[in-house]
Amino acid sequence: MADQERVAIQQAIKDQGEIVRKLKADKAEKDKISEEVAKLLELKAKLGDDAAPKKFILKTGKGTRDFNPQQMAIREEVFNKIIDCFKQHGAETIDTPVFELKETLTGKYGEDSKLIYDLADQGGEMLSLRYDLTVPFARYLAMNKITNIKRYQIAKVYRRDQPAMTRGRFREFYQCDIDIAGQYDAMIPDAECVKMVSTILKTLELGEFEIKLNHRKLLDGIFAACGVPEKDFRPICSAVDKLDKTPWLDVRKEMTEEKGLDPDVADAIGEYVKLKGQMDLVEQLQNDAKLMKQKSAVMGLEDMKLLLHYCSLYGCLNEVSFDLSLARGLDYYTGVIYEAVLKGFVHNADKGNDEESQGVGSVAGGGRYDGLVGMFDPKGKKVPCVGVSIGVERIFAIMEAKLQATNKKVRTTSTEVYVISAQKNMLEERMKLCRQLWDVKIKTEHSYKKNPKLLDQFQYCENNGIPIAVIIGESEIQQGILKLRKIDSREERTIPRESFIQEIRNELKLLSDEAVSE
Amino acid sequence: MADQERVAIQQAIKDQGEIVRKLKADKAEKDKISEEVAKLLELKAKLGDDAAPKKFILKTGKGTRDFNPQQMAIREEVFNKIIDCFKQHGAETIDTPVFELKETLTGKYGEDSKLIYDLADQGGEMLSLRYDLTVPFARYLAMNKITNIKRYQIAKVYRRDQPAMTRGRFREFYQCDIDIAGQYDAMIPDAECVKMVSTILKTLELGEFEIKLNHRKLLDGIFAACGVPEKDFRPICSAVDKLDKTPWLDVRKEMTEEKGLDPDVADAIGEYVKLKGQMDLVEQLQNDAKLMKQKSAVMGLEDMKLLLHYCSLYGCLNEVSFDLSLARGLDYYTGVIYEAVLKGFVHNADKGNDEESQGVGSVAGGGRYDGLVGMFDPKGKKVPCVGVSIGVERIFAIMEAKLQATNKKVRTTSTEVYVISAQKNMLEERMKLCRQLWDVKIKTEHSYKKNPKLLDQFQYCENNGIPIAVIIGESEIQQGILKLRKIDSREERTIPRESFIQEIRNELKLLSDEAVSE
Repeated sequence: MADQERVAIQQAIKDQGEIVRKLKADKAEKDKISEEVAKLLELKAKLGDDAAPKKFILKTGKGTRDFNPQQMAIREEVFNKIIDCFKQHGAETIDTPVFELKETLTGKYGEDSKLIYDLADQGGEMLSLRYDLTVPFARYLAMNKITNIKRYQIAKVYRRDQPAMTRGRFREFYQCDIDIAGQYDAMIPDAECVKMVSTILKTLELGEFEIKLNHRKLLDGIFAACGVPEKDFRPICSAVDKLDKTPWLDVRKEMTEEKGLDPDVADAIGEYVKLKGQMDLVEQLQNDAKLMKQKSAVMGLEDMKLLLHYCSLYGCLNEVSFDLSLARGLDYYTGVIYEAVLKGFVHNADKGNDEESQGVGSVAGGGRYDGLVGMFDPKGKKVPCVGVSIGVERIFAIMEAKLQATNKKVRTTSTEVYVISAQKNMLEERMKLCRQLWDVKIKTEHSYKKNPKLLDQFQYCENNGIPIAVIIGESEIQQGILKLRKIDSREERTIPRESFIQEIRNELKLLSDEAVSE
Repeated sequence: MADQERVAIQQAIKDQGEIVRKLKADKAEKDKISEEVAKLLELKAKLGDDAAPKKFILKTGKGTRDFNPQQMAIREEVFNKIIDCFKQHGAETIDTPVFELKETLTGKYGEDSKLIYDLADQGGEMLSLRYDLTVPFARYLAMNKITNIKRYQIAKVYRRDQPAMTRGRFREFYQCDIDIAGQYDAMIPDAECVKMVSTILKTLELGEFEIKLNHRKLLDGIFAACGVPEKDFRPICSAVDKLDKTPWLDVRKEMTEEKGLDPDVADAIGEYVKLKGQMDLVEQLQNDAKLMKQKSAVMGLEDMKLLLHYCSLYGCLNEVSFDLSLARGLDYYTGVIYEAVLKGFVHNADKGNDEESQGVGSVAGGGRYDGLVGMFDPKGKKVPCVGVSIGVERIFAIMEAKLQATNKKVRTTSTEVYVISAQKNMLEERMKLCRQLWDVKIKTEHSYKKNPKLLDQFQYCENNGIPIAVIIGESEIQQGILKLRKIDSREERTIPRESFIQEIRNELKLLSDEAVSE
């Protein structure tokens, strides 16, 4: 390396060091700091072997995270409750690859396409990481000529978005979707989606929630009735979509100034989108002569009427609200749209940050998309679909915060028995006992040390919530017995070695009965 | 488009069409055909709008696949059995992102690094898809300064390898790893890995298997004793690794001709690597004066002796074989190495293809890697690790083939009750019954049609293995009853509406008791 070059790099290192120090002094976001530290380390690496020994940048990619065992335990619990509900409704599951041909994703996400992760061109096909599970599902249906399926899929999707990890917004995150595909009678599958969201949110005990409902055809009818030119339906719809985070006046400004809508037209829309209700609102709108001249409004309202009626039969009418301000961002919806929000939930990290704290309560969303599968079929054959996606990352964040608040410890293992020896040279005896317990499927551990200390072994049981210890020593061997210790109560009793499996089974049964009756 | 250009493309389309026709006529591999069809469609697309309407290439990326609900059911069963075993041994689980910083993977995989998928440079960090779960696990340990953990992880990894999908070799595939990290006494965690592999392969009922064991230090000692220069240890080791697929004479050729080894040295190695046994082989080698001059051979043999002893205490000695030909490809192993093979298993698709059919029986592998975590620690602090990876893709392929052979149908849903109406206008009544059943967690479905045909509804139950139907009609409503039908036996009986939930629960309990006693 030329001296001149080295000097330039050393200067750059000095400057970059200054940036990092300043960020740290200003207590900037952790993510931002790591990014600048990474740049610094890269510069240092350029100096080569004669500089400090090469340092690895020990981090995960921006906007991604590891899950530790505690987080995995929460995640498993959430997934199990959601999957239970999906299975109660007769759903089956599929899986698709994490990447798709780039062109499969092209033209499906509008201006969000810039957020798609592409794979490098290493020869062969052009590939992109999936952006959601809906487009791969539609590709799957068209490719396999499937016209009827009720499927759920839980998998990670990828978006090169600005991460806001404290609020549960990541670049790699789980989606948890259920979709019902098939040509059926109006609103029957649509109502079942509402029922499932309601059941899931109740089961997860996240507090009070509301499932907002609206209909794309009704929105189109309203736009037409108010005098929006048809070409502006989608842009105006995406302005309405911001109403959960933005005050009406700002949305109105976007409509009139950015999108050139006549202010009177915007005001007319403003009157509609503040309406909320249930069957009363359906009736009110059905008496709106101007609106009823729009065929799509008539159709949308008929659907909404049926949907609310079915929700009542399914016992989930109390949780739903027919809300004309709900619009949803995605272009591909063609009928009913859903969004579930937790009432009054403000995430801890967002306190004092008004703009961002609104809308964080959204924990599920979806709608009907009757045209998407047809985009993949050579003959354009349509398969009507309706579905919802549960926002599990946000739910994980809430559950973690709740758990932290209660100071409860989650077990990350399910070990039932720990085999302990108080004396030296008992490793072989411990191994024999473990083998017997494992062979009858009792969850068992013992120390990986040859001569572990007694107290360390008890401590291990307490730290890991293991309920029972089996203790073996010289005198137990001679007498053909073992000691059984209950970790919680520290009670110990002697059990005969020849029937120790049965004794332990009885004890485990008692413990599980106690846990149920608590 | 210039006419000249158009003519050139049209000619290319004609030529490419010929290639596709020929492949089809020759009944070439499906994958190969789709690839050439894709090229054809791309050419056609170049002609633009004036050609046929743009066709989507309806396929998944090369070497990847969807899992349909039947395959998912098998996958779930396999995973559950494996996870059960991991949990029996007290393991917890973590998750890491699907991509890592590129430099995290750099320098870990030797010449296989060329198979790593990179993400496109879209600004920001350079990222790569994970190649295995071991390197991310080591990164996780170093980053979080974890020195003790027993963790399992089941997740997809990515390799730009030549796919051989009929033999279960994909570019996107599952790994299913368990690793024990921590400074413990010799061979105690190492033996538990053998025990877990043995338990899992027995539980999965894949037929007879053998777990081959060897030790990197012993191999090094053998190489030294035979006169291999130390710099050639790893290349010679990777030649030995091919012995499961390649005859000795070819391996010898690689050693002498490609890698410049003295033929006499190669022959000396050849004498060792054909040895197999258990404790007898340990004794034989401990009496080998030339070998015992190598310190690393002495250490390796001490380990092997302990390992075999512990395997005997854990009740899995019958399945293990101390096999000097086992070498494993990866550079990072430092101690014991494992590989489990199914005895005499030859995959259907490989019949008559001798070269490829060997080695397909391998269904698990792993070893001790005491240096990898230290590569990520700024101070090089080591965390000793040992682990195994279960080859689940191969296991899925075997289970699918087995299932196909027995002609058994897998249920992909777990619906218990189907609510049926024989007459028109019963949708609301069906919905009410479903609601009651769902609300007490009974898995229930009904038709999405307003007025479905009775036979179609019975057929749905039979196709989907739903055991019980509840039938409602005008007369049932008037009498306050329902009909309960057992789908298998076609028995029908009347039950009172007010206690129908209890009646159904009883019936389901009877059915599940019957299933258990079968």
